[in-house]
Amino acid sequence: MTEESVEFAGQTITRAELIYEGKAKQVFATNDPTIIWMHYMDQVTALNGKVKEEYAGKGALNSRISNLLFTYLADQGINHHWLGSVSETDELVKKVAIIPLEVVTRNYTAGHFVSRFGVKAHEKLEPRVQELYYKSDELDDPFMNDSQAISLGFASRQDLSTVYALADQVNELLVAIFNKINITLVDYKLEFGRLADGQIILADELSPDNMRLLDKETGKSLDKDVFRQKQGDLRLGYQDVLNRLEESLK
Amino acid sequence: MTEESVEFAGQTITRAELIYEGKAKQVFATNDPTIIWMHYMDQVTALNGKVKEEYAGKGALNSRISNLLFTYLADQGINHHWLGSVSETDELVKKVAIIPLEVVTRNYTAGHFVSRFGVKAHEKLEPRVQELYYKSDELDDPFMNDSQAISLGFASRQDLSTVYALADQVNELLVAIFNKINITLVDYKLEFGRLADGQIILADELSPDNMRLLDKETGKSLDKDVFRQKQGDLRLGYQDVLNRLEESLK
Repeated sequence: MTEESVEFAGQTITRAELIYEGKAKQVFATNDPTIIWMHYMDQVTALNGKVKEEYAGKGALNSRISNLLFTYLADQGINHHWLGSVSETDELVKKVAIIPLEVVTRNYTAGHFVSRFGVKAHEKLEPRVQELYYKSDELDDPFMNDSQAISLGFASRQDLSTVYALADQVNELLVAIFNKINITLVDYKLEFGRLADGQIILADELSPDNMRLLDKETGKSLDKDVFRQKQGDLRLGYQDVLNRLEESLK
Repeated sequence: MTEESVEFAGQTITRAELIYEGKAKQVFATNDPTIIWMHYMDQVTALNGKVKEEYAGKGALNSRISNLLFTYLADQGINHHWLGSVSETDELVKKVAIIPLEVVTRNYTAGHFVSRFGVKAHEKLEPRVQELYYKSDELDDPFMNDSQAISLGFASRQDLSTVYALADQVNELLVAIFNKINITLVDYKLEFGRLADGQIILADELSPDNMRLLDKETGKSLDKDVFRQKQGDLRLGYQDVLNRLEESLK
């Protein structure tokens, strides 16, 4: 990528060095120490990166879906890192210190949860389940509990209470919007980060790369499971999700 | 085993049908519906029963160690199920509805915790870590968190608070007694059960089958790791633990 600058909120923001490259995103510093430049890649991975493919346009779909959902959550009072889009695939977000934990919410049984506990798939979980995973590619993002996260110094008990309460607020709002567009939000991953003043806010992205979404009528997957299970072009489902969200949130 | 009866607290207790056979224990009903008859076997297993061996006398060692520790805990105010021994390998316990969760306390890193989180072995954990495992041979006792245990109906949030608080009281007392006999209590498993009136009490056994114990001077294992790691006759370590406990608690 070449040097790039955009006008944003009356300020020129210039992309600087790559800070982090994930499985589907690149994260760059900018000339403003409080702002990060995020680029959505077209790469899709499964099995923690062991399976990889390119789908042209997937990054743009995720960026658009994520932006719509962050905007919706902000309108409902959720604090998050998203500031605005600078292109179809690029956005500016607030710089946070990422808490190294993935927070998974499960409204229905699916995936590992089914094999781990010998339960049926797509059964409603009441109450919803919340899980932590330690963000570590080397260790394959191991599942962990609160006590482990606290003892290993990843978060305090107070941090975890804040994170779980935020995740529950987000869940209520996401379930509501997906219900409205006839989609079941089965489970999904959130990440949280800390602003310089210590406030914990929602970070990362909100896209079908990190969610299980089922069409309520057909039961068909509209998310990365299409890729994981080699059921065809995952972009069809992502585009469908985007169309329904745009229709509902316009 | 043939029919057997003992006099216990002015009552004749007769062993009845086998209710449950674990990896190292048999559990029988008795003629008294509030009393269970537990028999310690000489069998030792590893890898959830995939490796098996007999060590004559191991059951008696575990029974004696467990009885000493339960008596010590009772003297310190911990409610538990142990009523008394009826032979070297057999004991009577209060009938409880077992909560299907193993509660593991880790004072130092070891075993799965080390490989799972990429940490060094035998590092002190501060605060101690508490973990839940779902008791299921079929599913290989999967690790679970509170939210999963609650949603799957294994325990309520209130039950878990009670169990964790009891486990912490037990931990403080066990660490103290093992420190006194120059042994490091690395980690161990507890089980809890509910009496007919709803009270949750400590159940199962307290033995080197379910604990990691290290001699503070030599660093040598005095527990089932000797068997898991094929380091010789595990009974030598068990006997050493028993001798030291008897000396200290007499």
